[in-house]
Amino acid sequence: MSLDPVNVAIVGLGTVGTGVARVLLDQPERIARRAGRPVVLRRAVVRNAAKSRDIQLPSGILTTDVAEVVNDREIQVALHLVGGIHPAREIMLDLLIAGKDVVTANKALLCEYGDELFAKARELGRTIAFEAAVAGGIPIIAAVGQSLAGNQILSISAILNGTSNYILTQMVRENWSYREALKRAQELGYAEEDPTLDVDGTDAAQKLVILTQLAFGVKAPLSSFPRQGIDTLELADLRYAAELGYTVKLLAVSRLVNGELEMRVQPTLVRQHTPLAEIHGAFNAIALVGDVVGETWYSGPGAGQMPTASAVIADLIDTIAGRTQITFPRLELWRHKSAPYALQPREKISSRFYLRFNVLDRPHVLADIADILGKSEISIASVIQHEAPEVAHVESGAKPVVPLVIMTHRTTEGNLQAAEQKLNQLSSITPPRVRMAVAD
Amino acid sequence: MSLDPVNVAIVGLGTVGTGVARVLLDQPERIARRAGRPVVLRRAVVRNAAKSRDIQLPSGILTTDVAEVVNDREIQVALHLVGGIHPAREIMLDLLIAGKDVVTANKALLCEYGDELFAKARELGRTIAFEAAVAGGIPIIAAVGQSLAGNQILSISAILNGTSNYILTQMVRENWSYREALKRAQELGYAEEDPTLDVDGTDAAQKLVILTQLAFGVKAPLSSFPRQGIDTLELADLRYAAELGYTVKLLAVSRLVNGELEMRVQPTLVRQHTPLAEIHGAFNAIALVGDVVGETWYSGPGAGQMPTASAVIADLIDTIAGRTQITFPRLELWRHKSAPYALQPREKISSRFYLRFNVLDRPHVLADIADILGKSEISIASVIQHEAPEVAHVESGAKPVVPLVIMTHRTTEGNLQAAEQKLNQLSSITPPRVRMAVAD
Repeated sequence: MSLDPVNVAIVGLGTVGTGVARVLLDQPERIARRAGRPVVLRRAVVRNAAKSRDIQLPSGILTTDVAEVVNDREIQVALHLVGGIHPAREIMLDLLIAGKDVVTANKALLCEYGDELFAKARELGRTIAFEAAVAGGIPIIAAVGQSLAGNQILSISAILNGTSNYILTQMVRENWSYREALKRAQELGYAEEDPTLDVDGTDAAQKLVILTQLAFGVKAPLSSFPRQGIDTLELADLRYAAELGYTVKLLAVSRLVNGELEMRVQPTLVRQHTPLAEIHGAFNAIALVGDVVGETWYSGPGAGQMPTASAVIADLIDTIAGRTQITFPRLELWRHKSAPYALQPREKISSRFYLRFNVLDRPHVLADIADILGKSEISIASVIQHEAPEVAHVESGAKPVVPLVIMTHRTTEGNLQAAEQKLNQLSSITPPRVRMAVAD
Repeated sequence: MSLDPVNVAIVGLGTVGTGVARVLLDQPERIARRAGRPVVLRRAVVRNAAKSRDIQLPSGILTTDVAEVVNDREIQVALHLVGGIHPAREIMLDLLIAGKDVVTANKALLCEYGDELFAKARELGRTIAFEAAVAGGIPIIAAVGQSLAGNQILSISAILNGTSNYILTQMVRENWSYREALKRAQELGYAEEDPTLDVDGTDAAQKLVILTQLAFGVKAPLSSFPRQGIDTLELADLRYAAELGYTVKLLAVSRLVNGELEMRVQPTLVRQHTPLAEIHGAFNAIALVGDVVGETWYSGPGAGQMPTASAVIADLIDTIAGRTQITFPRLELWRHKSAPYALQPREKISSRFYLRFNVLDRPHVLADIADILGKSEISIASVIQHEAPEVAHVESGAKPVVPLVIMTHRTTEGNLQAAEQKLNQLSSITPPRVRMAVAD
């Protein structure tokens, strides 16, 4: 501890930034011991200095001018905790160019501008640490980037969006509709006022893009793989899944199949009593298969102030201690000129599927559907059709409609799409129609 | 990759050593890329050079003389994969003194001689990496030592012995007795011919000692905390636990309670549908609570050739890349002169308990037991006593005996021991008597 202190700055004092500041101010001795040097919080950049905050900062730290960090040569590490893309990208570039090592929690930024930012950091001999950008408090970047370094990762299957997992859990537990569960999640702060990016699969897909880069060296833009959220599911689907022995999870998958990389984010039936099925509430979980180690699992809080702060502080300690300087140049992400694996074309993606149709309660409907599926090479593994409730939909003057659930054997996305086009012609099927994948 | 190759040696070519050799020989490009330098396997030390092996080594590598590693100045890293205490300890000291960095998988050695070995390595400026010593393929040493470095660990609850977990899983699944499950585990290679250290809790306790050092800086010899294995359990106990909503796991626990460290290894009732309860077969799992991150879980294969090799290779890459040289001097284990936390005296350890008695089927037995428990301040939460089977134990001429299961409310180990002394006087109770803890 005879070494000089290291000066750090927090850029962005939102929820996570405040949590990080709290740990830095409350635990100076712990952090100094583990980093090997005392760590001094020298600046915290905010948009609005007048805003009341849930933390007492020493005087003189708060500033609204990021240039006070960029231009301060005494600041060695910048904790980049601003959200969004702009000006987050420009701020990170300025920090790197000014010679700061950077720790970030911004997954959207890395997903979109990782190429440029990592190249710039490498060119300048600087580092970017980003444990906090994926799965919050779960050290999954360290697991893939270091602890499983003897492995080629073969498969990632992950619950990466806590909001969706909370909603799915509560729908089943409380018998809530999707709308009710979402409303409750918003009241509790698990979902934002505009929850679109969480519930439509975008947030999980952004994290999957980063993990896929790290594990496979493949750059896959969001548009390059199928993405489906939980916002079209109904409680009935979760109940049917349970009847079939499954729990529904928003699963992000990236895995090698015959030398190609299959990627997808979609609601998926996971067999009950397996570790991923038992991840409840706002938690995240990642199942990783490596060619040497076999399957390993990681779980924990995937978001939130202090879990994310834990990841930021770990990255900060690694950066000050010098581990990041060793790790960062060796990471395989945003590095390959040509991808080591091609993305599997989406029509070739293979899975078993859960399909729910709302059908008119009249003869030959199941036969028509089975015929269309059969002609697309899709064979049926099981069917659920319960007796129609006595008064279903009749009061409204509509024809009686009953749900029909079909589990298919393994088929391809392409076959299913072809069948769906023909199913659209059937007058006996009424929207909505739900489909989910089934995990192997 | 313009850097000089690094020469490494394997000392001990048993199951794990052979797995490590296989990865080194099969994946030179992968390892060179991640370590930053080519890695050359220069020596493999065996006891018996004539023994036929499941691997083809390049000629000239095999030796029976460890001095050929110790005295070879070209060898920079030694993979210390010998079991037992002697000569494993002497070999590691010789390697350190000769200037090698060491990677080891030997938990028993670290548990007993960690003090001396770590002090020697620190004194010499060398490193010891030991990810493989705890929980095989699960990167738990990295999680505690690095990824959660912003946290004070508050609690470790872990399934650390795959053999026991396999036996417990199979007893329930297959309706096997303990003996049958053990025999099957031995046939499948999950249990050794002499399974004592696995099933009596010693192996799990050794790993807990290492994790406790790392997380709490406390040196707790095996004799200093309660340890109970699974070898006294019967299938009936697992069935009663299930009836009560629990799964039985051999749980290793180390956690801070009112500023003291509670440590124990014992069969424990874990609530069904929680992550630890759903760890089946030979897998390990660790639940860690940190004061910043909250609860995180890690799971995977806790033993076996390739999972353990994965951990050894990760440590080797860290050592060659230089991360271990940063991490090792900062680890808090085997370092404190005075322990930062005192061990909680075992009579103060507090828990709910599962108790099974075999009682004579006659009046007032339950009243007698309840009276004794009550006088020791133990209150009863629930009782299971099923109707006696028609012919139970009668053929053998013995008196009819029925099982009685009691779940207590929270009490202390001391209260329970006091009650047990009095229960021993009751002529209506016959051995064996089973007790397990109940996880919070």
